[in-house]
Amino acid sequence: MRLLLINPNISVSVTALIEAEARRSAQPGTALTAVTAPFGVAYIETRFEALIGASAVAELAGTHASGHDAVVIAAFGDPGLMALREVLPMPVVGLTEAALMSAGQLGRRFSIIAISQRIGAWYRECVESYGMGSRLVSIRSLSQPLRDVGAIQQAHCDGLVALARQAVREDGADVIVLAGAPLAGLARQVKALLPVPVVDGVSSAVVQAQALVALNTGRAMEGSFAAPPAKPHTGLSAAVAALLQPGGIQTR
Amino acid sequence: MRLLLINPNISVSVTALIEAEARRSAQPGTALTAVTAPFGVAYIETRFEALIGASAVAELAGTHASGHDAVVIAAFGDPGLMALREVLPMPVVGLTEAALMSAGQLGRRFSIIAISQRIGAWYRECVESYGMGSRLVSIRSLSQPLRDVGAIQQAHCDGLVALARQAVREDGADVIVLAGAPLAGLARQVKALLPVPVVDGVSSAVVQAQALVALNTGRAMEGSFAAPPAKPHTGLSAAVAALLQPGGIQTR
Amino acid sequence: MRLLLINPNISVSVTALIEAEARRSAQPGTALTAVTAPFGVAYIETRFEALIGASAVAELAGTHASGHDAVVIAAFGDPGLMALREVLPMPVVGLTEAALMSAGQLGRRFSIIAISQRIGAWYRECVESYGMGSRLVSIRSLSQPLRDVGAIQQAHCDGLVALARQAVREDGADVIVLAGAPLAGLARQVKALLPVPVVDGVSSAVVQAQALVALNTGRAMEGSFAAPPAKPHTGLSAAVAALLQPGGIQTR
Amino acid sequence: MRLLLINPNISVSVTALIEAEARRSAQPGTALTAVTAPFGVAYIETRFEALIGASAVAELAGTHASGHDAVVIAAFGDPGLMALREVLPMPVVGLTEAALMSAGQLGRRFSIIAISQRIGAWYRECVESYGMGSRLVSIRSLSQPLRDVGAIQQAHCDGLVALARQAVREDGADVIVLAGAPLAGLARQVKALLPVPVVDGVSSAVVQAQALVALNTGRAMEGSFAAPPAKPHTGLSAAVAALLQPGGIQTR
Amino acid sequence: MRLLLINPNISVSVTALIEAEARRSAQPGTALTAVTAPFGVAYIETRFEALIGASAVAELAGTHASGHDAVVIAAFGDPGLMALREVLPMPVVGLTEAALMSAGQLGRRFSIIAISQRIGAWYRECVESYGMGSRLVSIRSLSQPLRDVGAIQQAHCDGLVALARQAVREDGADVIVLAGAPLAGLARQVKALLPVPVVDGVSSAVVQAQALVALNTGRAMEGSFAAPPAKPHTGLSAAVAALLQPGGIQTR
Amino acid sequence: MRLLLINPNISVSVTALIEAEARRSAQPGTALTAVTAPFGVAYIETRFEALIGASAVAELAGTHASGHDAVVIAAFGDPGLMALREVLPMPVVGLTEAALMSAGQLGRRFSIIAISQRIGAWYRECVESYGMGSRLVSIRSLSQPLRDVGAIQQAHCDGLVALARQAVREDGADVIVLAGAPLAGLARQVKALLPVPVVDGVSSAVVQAQALVALNTGRAMEGSFAAPPAKPHTGLSAAVAALLQPGGIQTR
Repeated sequence: MRLLLINPNISVSVTALIEAEARRSAQPGTALTAVTAPFGVAYIETRFEALIGASAVAELAGTHASGHDAVVIAAFGDPGLMALREVLPMPVVGLTEAALMSAGQLGRRFSIIAISQRIGAWYRECVESYGMGSRLVSIRSLSQPLRDVGAIQQAHCDGLVALARQAVREDGADVIVLAGAPLAGLARQVKALLPVPVVDGVSSAVVQAQALVALNTGRAMEGSFAAPPAKPHTGLSAAVAALLQPGGIQTR
Repeated sequence: MRLLLINPNISVSVTALIEAEARRSAQPGTALTAVTAPFGVAYIETRFEALIGASAVAELAGTHASGHDAVVIAAFGDPGLMALREVLPMPVVGLTEAALMSAGQLGRRFSIIAISQRIGAWYRECVESYGMGSRLVSIRSLSQPLRDVGAIQQAHCDGLVALARQAVREDGADVIVLAGAPLAGLARQVKALLPVPVVDGVSSAVVQAQALVALNTGRAMEGSFAAPPAKPHTGLSAAVAALLQPGGIQTR
Repeated sequence: MRLLLINPNISVSVTALIEAEARRSAQPGTALTAVTAPFGVAYIETRFEALIGASAVAELAGTHASGHDAVVIAAFGDPGLMALREVLPMPVVGLTEAALMSAGQLGRRFSIIAISQRIGAWYRECVESYGMGSRLVSIRSLSQPLRDVGAIQQAHCDGLVALARQAVREDGADVIVLAGAPLAGLARQVKALLPVPVVDGVSSAVVQAQALVALNTGRAMEGSFAAPPAKPHTGLSAAVAALLQPGGIQTR
Repeated sequence: MRLLLINPNISVSVTALIEAEARRSAQPGTALTAVTAPFGVAYIETRFEALIGASAVAELAGTHASGHDAVVIAAFGDPGLMALREVLPMPVVGLTEAALMSAGQLGRRFSIIAISQRIGAWYRECVESYGMGSRLVSIRSLSQPLRDVGAIQQAHCDGLVALARQAVREDGADVIVLAGAPLAGLARQVKALLPVPVVDGVSSAVVQAQALVALNTGRAMEGSFAAPPAKPHTGLSAAVAALLQPGGIQTR
Repeated sequence: MRLLLINPNISVSVTALIEAEARRSAQPGTALTAVTAPFGVAYIETRFEALIGASAVAELAGTHASGHDAVVIAAFGDPGLMALREVLPMPVVGLTEAALMSAGQLGRRFSIIAISQRIGAWYRECVESYGMGSRLVSIRSLSQPLRDVGAIQQAHCDGLVALARQAVREDGADVIVLAGAPLAGLARQVKALLPVPVVDGVSSAVVQAQALVALNTGRAMEGSFAAPPAKPHTGLSAAVAALLQPGGIQTR
Repeated sequence: MRLLLINPNISVSVTALIEAEARRSAQPGTALTAVTAPFGVAYIETRFEALIGASAVAELAGTHASGHDAVVIAAFGDPGLMALREVLPMPVVGLTEAALMSAGQLGRRFSIIAISQRIGAWYRECVESYGMGSRLVSIRSLSQPLRDVGAIQQAHCDGLVALARQAVREDGADVIVLAGAPLAGLARQVKALLPVPVVDGVSSAVVQAQALVALNTGRAMEGSFAAPPAKPHTGLSAAVAALLQPGGIQTR
């Protein structure tokens, strides 16, 4: 199985974290391709940054998706996920959606632990757009300004664990979701410190991608996830144009 | 007052429809700037096409917004609306949101009449994202394949009126929303044929933009619509970079 | 354009506040008629007081609405709004609904700042009845007993600003709604003190009324906002009977 | 036990239907007082007519409630119910609410069978205001214009039964609610013709009033159903003023 | 009238509390049969314990229901309620549902006061399953470990009253529901200490059972509460098999 | 990896279908134990039958779960799922929940195709209890009475495919869920006949169980999915008692 991991941000250090956790989570025979946004911001906290990230995801998917069995959009908030699902012939998985679908099978209500206050509104809207808002009891966040996003795990591990414990004891969370690609891999390090299951976005996305590839349900030819109807376009990059062209991207 | 009208699609004929209806709807002293997407598709029906459109909106806003009092994103589905609202210092209005906020004051439950079956899912998700899903009783759509999007009003006027009547009599709509920039201006032509108020997206956006400019509430300095926190970026166009730069865009 | 402003309460001092803010908000050529309830209570805090206020609104509308382009029900909680919309041939706007529709275009989630604890339940039910409950993050209220409702702005300005700041920082409000006709005009005085847009009910109602008049969508002849079916009645005042009589009220 | 039955409409023939069904439903020792609106319309189909009816309910309650153990507002849609509950010291029951609370214990999802198309919107909003909208699968209505509201049971019995059967077989209703005081008593006549439990508003209101009197939970001294805070008023009828005066109405 | 009271737990002391409060609440001529689970746990706090309790309820209902007019499942959380309603020919009432339906007619928003923290999640899911989640403002619970469940009223009366007051003043509850069969009868003792109506599960269930028996609506022959379609079964106890057999249980 | 597959019904032929599809879906090294309910009904269509099935699930889990890595409750409607998740130390997966979590990552809105009309209400309540009701557009069902549940795939394949196509074209389903263990394996046979992805419960449960085992998140020690607090019990079978005993069941 071949998975394409798309980091919608420009942070190469975060791509490394993503790839390492994906490697730890994937089945032995799975090959991974990890790519980094050629343009964009250091990390996505807002809707406008997500707009930029979604554009980078399209560019990377159009360039690299062919020959893979599934694609992972490796940022929380899942920029471009529903859009890419229309134009790619293989399963497309997002960190938030995959984490929610995993967490949903481990308990009933969950909390998201996030790396900044600002990021919370975007995460909440993402959860609500999946119809899972009634199961989200809280989003708790670090309050310090972020400096080195690639080193945030080390710098703030204790603070993140404390927030997770509060979410369990004060908010009634059955499951904790550690949110954000910069936290990739932290869940397996801190799980012994927490009294409820802890879910990581990257590993959830990898196991869910594997699950969907195994189900092998085929792609939509009708309905709202079929390829967009043919129509004139202009000025698109070759990568984006390939996504709109029937057969432009081939699954493995 | 100066309004920037952004057509997120490449159809110059639709830009002309938008500008003409905006002219009919605006107060006498209002100046209009209408711009067309430099890249993209002929019209947006799907989430992926909306991703492309949102990117074009950002490009156009970064280039043209300075010196205007408000910006109108002139496509139904409001591509990029919430994102632009974070980075522009003036009100940003979308056709769908403005139509819903107008329709909401004319009745309780509304139906959307749309130009294609495929477009319905995207519209529904847009309405739900505004928390107005409980007031949407139906989306009814033309079932023929679209040919000339700039001439759809003439070609399908009768069909659209018939759908609207069905929405009133079978679905219980109190208000009809004629959806899609290609239908700009149709509402004022057909209102005598329909038994309930009919709302047009472009005219709603213009009057709502005027309303927000009159309220003059100032922009968010905190909360989830403040400008994104400063952080490294790379590879962005000058227009998009201007949107991220404090003071990069100036209101009039 | 001629607007009728109906104060559903007996407080003449509040009518003056309403009229002054309406004058500041309206377009130059707009004429205003402000009327005060001939019976009722000093200000509405509860459902029963709203029942009385709704009755006064009907009386005033039946007496004064003819010859106006739109009617504003100038109390938060919008007593009688949906009822009047059935029987008046011109747009009818309520302070709460207009404020929500304006606030909804400036951010995603809003808080209401209110003048008494007791008033909160009635406001919440009003917001929920419009389907906007998912966007209301909090209602924060003054806790002191109210004395002179016409002077509450001066007496409690600092407290109201403090509540609004808490709503932004603790509740996550993107927009603040200053609720209650007695606060008419306060928003424009305190907006520099608050980090997010602040919406006032009276000015919102005026600009929304202007917007609806400009849209000129016509009135409902079918559906749930058409005039009530003819049927016997008895004992009604001349004003209320006029509302039930076809053509009893004429728009300008 | 003494129950006050308030008909918010002017139809004396409907008051007779209400009283007869209440008599059939009440415990042997229960005394009934049935009163008819001194002003208003023949029957309530719309929000504006409900506004008038709510005003009549207040007038009648202020005049007649003293000395009763509970009050029944005997129109579907429950005009004035929440308002009266603030000012009366005894339980106040509405036909719709009581029917829903009874139906809710006989099945999960219910349909309302109504006497006119127009009446449906008002009923739906009433059900939704009680938070029970998710359990309402349909409202089905007679489509003929109503003539003699006091004779509608005889004239339309077959049509109403047919609508109820459709609601069970096509909409999935577990319980049928026959709506409207003019149908009082029909449920017990047609229950053998229907395959699911059938609930009548008047009998539900009577048994629920008896249930609440038996519970004897006392009235609210705080919270949103306590009496309105004292404040100036003017121009109110003696009956309405009595409702606002502490101790103005005495339970038995 | 004959009511069967089923305690789904093995605590004979709680059965005594249930029966005593039912006796105080029932009409004079009502006969009560109170039975205790032959297997199970001391009290139900969790979903798994509720599964066991539901099984005991089925066993007891199959053995004892014949000859009664209604059945009360006398544990909060209503284990087995919807299931039993399919197979019993008489009304089946649960403590939670009956308390909510009573509370719903005394105010708009309610809080549940519970005897343990752990029990809260199960209660919340129960309330939400009835579609009443929007009216539940809080669940407040004792935090001490439970020892003698039959003596919890005496041991924790003050703490429970304090929680109820907090629910009114901090959470905005209009009505208090004292939850759990071990609190049967406490409401009538503490109602003078609380500023809003207080609802007890056992007395609510009794008066609601009486109300449903009085309505005499007949049982479902179609829809989702009709008896399960005939099909092979094996290994069931005689009591459970009787529930599945047409005519296996007879109402009085 | 060792999976325990629990058929909550007594139909050995269905257990064989479940095991065969699980074998086709599982990774090569996965060992399967399939067990059949020792008591119960032929197949579950109603809430009461689900109560019986949940009891059988507890019995089987208490007897067989030790030594497995995950447990699959192999009936649609997931009888006992949330309850077992409290008492088992390994992941517990249900057919419905797993299918929804898989379907949720393949599209936005889904339809369930079911084997009987009666079964629909129970399925709908199950979906709603997971908070996914807003994504369910329809349940379509065979209308013929069921005879041989083990042979239903062959007998009704064409009818099921026709229902699925209607769900796509008339209801707007993006994904089809073929519901019920008796349909295990049908999805892979008919997927070429359907225009959208088709999800099977058994294969979804197997791949989701594998995903959760791979995530290895540990079990809840606090919150609402921790083991029930210790308390007296009596009369329980050895299997159920083992589930309540700390360490009574051991993961592999």
